[in-house]
Amino acid sequence: MNRRNFIQKAALAGSVTSILPSLSNEFQTKPLDKVRLGFIGVGHRGRSHIEQALFSSDVEINAICDIDPSAINITLDQIKKTGKKAPAVYAKGAEDFLNMVKRDDLDGILIATPWEWHVPMTLAAMRAGKYAAVEVSATVTLQESWDLVDTFEKTGSHCMILENVCYRRDVMAVLKMVREGVLGEMTYAHCGYQHDLRGIKLNDGKSNNVGVEFGEKGYSESKWRTQHSVDRNGDIYPTHGLGPVAHWLDINRGNYFTYLTSTATKSRGLHKYIVDHGGKDHPNAKVNFKLGDIVTTVIQCHNGENIVLIHDTNSPRSYSLAFRAQGTEGIWMNDGNSIYIEGVSPKEHTSEPDAPYLAKYDHPLWKKHAKSAENAGHGGIDYFVFRGFVESIKRKTAPPIDVYDAAVWSAISPLSEMSIARGSSPVEIPDFTRGKWKTNKRIFGLNEDY
Amino acid sequence: MNRRNFIQKAALAGSVTSILPSLSNEFQTKPLDKVRLGFIGVGHRGRSHIEQALFSSDVEINAICDIDPSAINITLDQIKKTGKKAPAVYAKGAEDFLNMVKRDDLDGILIATPWEWHVPMTLAAMRAGKYAAVEVSATVTLQESWDLVDTFEKTGSHCMILENVCYRRDVMAVLKMVREGVLGEMTYAHCGYQHDLRGIKLNDGKSNNVGVEFGEKGYSESKWRTQHSVDRNGDIYPTHGLGPVAHWLDINRGNYFTYLTSTATKSRGLHKYIVDHGGKDHPNAKVNFKLGDIVTTVIQCHNGENIVLIHDTNSPRSYSLAFRAQGTEGIWMNDGNSIYIEGVSPKEHTSEPDAPYLAKYDHPLWKKHAKSAENAGHGGIDYFVFRGFVESIKRKTAPPIDVYDAAVWSAISPLSEMSIARGSSPVEIPDFTRGKWKTNKRIFGLNEDY
Repeated sequence: MNRRNFIQKAALAGSVTSILPSLSNEFQTKPLDKVRLGFIGVGHRGRSHIEQALFSSDVEINAICDIDPSAINITLDQIKKTGKKAPAVYAKGAEDFLNMVKRDDLDGILIATPWEWHVPMTLAAMRAGKYAAVEVSATVTLQESWDLVDTFEKTGSHCMILENVCYRRDVMAVLKMVREGVLGEMTYAHCGYQHDLRGIKLNDGKSNNVGVEFGEKGYSESKWRTQHSVDRNGDIYPTHGLGPVAHWLDINRGNYFTYLTSTATKSRGLHKYIVDHGGKDHPNAKVNFKLGDIVTTVIQCHNGENIVLIHDTNSPRSYSLAFRAQGTEGIWMNDGNSIYIEGVSPKEHTSEPDAPYLAKYDHPLWKKHAKSAENAGHGGIDYFVFRGFVESIKRKTAPPIDVYDAAVWSAISPLSEMSIARGSSPVEIPDFTRGKWKTNKRIFGLNEDY
Repeated sequence: MNRRNFIQKAALAGSVTSILPSLSNEFQTKPLDKVRLGFIGVGHRGRSHIEQALFSSDVEINAICDIDPSAINITLDQIKKTGKKAPAVYAKGAEDFLNMVKRDDLDGILIATPWEWHVPMTLAAMRAGKYAAVEVSATVTLQESWDLVDTFEKTGSHCMILENVCYRRDVMAVLKMVREGVLGEMTYAHCGYQHDLRGIKLNDGKSNNVGVEFGEKGYSESKWRTQHSVDRNGDIYPTHGLGPVAHWLDINRGNYFTYLTSTATKSRGLHKYIVDHGGKDHPNAKVNFKLGDIVTTVIQCHNGENIVLIHDTNSPRSYSLAFRAQGTEGIWMNDGNSIYIEGVSPKEHTSEPDAPYLAKYDHPLWKKHAKSAENAGHGGIDYFVFRGFVESIKRKTAPPIDVYDAAVWSAISPLSEMSIARGSSPVEIPDFTRGKWKTNKRIFGLNEDY
């Protein structure tokens, strides 16, 4: 019985995630020397993962897949420049990824495609016995979140959501502070995705980045991403904010999200951008964008914490994920870079700069790998999230961000849409662990390794 | 027919607030030289209004009322030191205010008492034909908000809520920016009351401010305010945040609050404070505080804006009212003191310090009166809110913050309690103007006068 078969059997027998870590200690074997990866989707985002793979001496790129020939060519060039061998190419239409995942020279598949393709591709990879890594958000519908979980539990193939913000140096330092009780008992968190995407949602690939096209006439993400702003009103991109907060609050491991309410402002930003840059007679000025400019979601947690989550992508602003972590003994805020710890901060009721605290509680992972992360480009977080996937494959263990995280973080989108459609009524958030949150142990940020 | 009778008749005839400003122009008469005030409640807060009155050469203090003899004595001393004549004293029990409001040498009554006394006292003042000014929050229950409105419409006696934060220099500058369209069309606002009140809610008047008593053994506000944290779970102090935001969004004047959802965290802070400072065997360690440490309320507005309102009074933190004003062309944030205006801020997607903008859009009221406000003490806002009341009496016109504002801002508390009790279900917010929001014109911050 090889290792993969064993993992599959263990999965069928029950709680894989809780069994595996101890088993991997028991049957301590040498990690794989090499991890062989395939990439589905090698657009801008996929190629930044390719860059991490090329930087890693323990990774082989054996196959790439994309429907866009130019993306394939750019990627082949990118690989060729490093002197590494050319991967097999799968570019024969939208279903060719099904052929790629069957290859027996792949340990893991990394998926960076339009959101609606994430789950079909992830399921195919898992069913083919491969580790799957999927970009954020992992799923679009509630059923897709269940499909991820069910397929993991059936096949034993792991799925990691590539939530790079979980590895941001500040939020990992805060994670360490939270776990060491520096903020006391946690009560509250804020987070969000506040990023002016108007120039990305509306982009013709020329026009000095103020083109107002999307869909067929669009460029890059505007080809597919913008349609979600036409069709959906909800927090359609929740995980950059929620991922780190979920780790702070031990979601799926001793805690879970119970319900949410969502409320949306009117929709103005995208239409205004089209009129401002394309004129009121531009055909897209007639498009009715369903997405409110700002969507606020409030999540109740089983252990009594609240999370405020903001989606704000259609308005002029500076980028901020609006993190705030608060407990019975202190509060950290990303906007303003401030912290206040009772009995520690020198002046009562007066917050102070967070930098010394973030340095003091620098996470061991960053302490050890900061230099490598820096050399790998992209500010470090892409290095760590990629290494998390690779190292878990090498050790044949569960990834540090797992299928249950992928399922519930992503599910906030359809649940938020539901709440807004029902006039901000509270909507129950499913427990994708089916009760295993009671006994599941922490898996993220445990040590300096990955 | 004297002026007061006229006002009363006009009120009976219909829309007083919209009629009065134009009438007061039409029948332009010289404002009163003197305004004669009575004060109900001369504790810490009442005496700070007394201080403003003593600073004002156009104000006579003719009567004071309190059930606490020491408050009366301190106030009499405070007045005596300025050489002004001693006021009549009403201190014969909880109902003696009913005698005071009958005096015919009073134009206005200023009320700074425990919340549950606000409305009975305000109604008595209004029914006695006096202008009433009431501290925040004006009301505790929804019925009380209706009582204020109905009594105004029946008597024509005005009621002003003393929401001093409306006059904060930064939020008034932002008001000017909003009205001039600098932020574009408004979509979103944040605000809240984030103030560590543990040492106020739990205070025995000695013990170096870490006594853990309240109620009968309590000192000052802890005598009565703390019980609200025992009995209620909701945003029990919403107006400091909501007042300025309501002005930004023209609530009651072209816009109104439609519904809200509220969500509360677990309650930890007050109990922990008692145990930390009084020991786990202190009798108050057995008290079950119903109020969640942090309560988040999301308000939907008729014109499509959303407001996020936070109540955070039981946790260690620095003071912040968490203001954020956002529109289709820019965003201002109080935490971090930042602003970003599209096409104006020098670097795209990069916020900048707000100070130059706050200076540029300094409100005319502040420009004209900053020096007097400074001389009057208390950082200016108490000066302006007091002057707003006095000047409207002098002109026999509606105050700049009116009974409808008092009613709806304060009503957020019971509505928020309702939502939390119903698992964060959306709760409709009554339109206290009964449709007059459609035609009501702005009354706040219109000019440099008051």
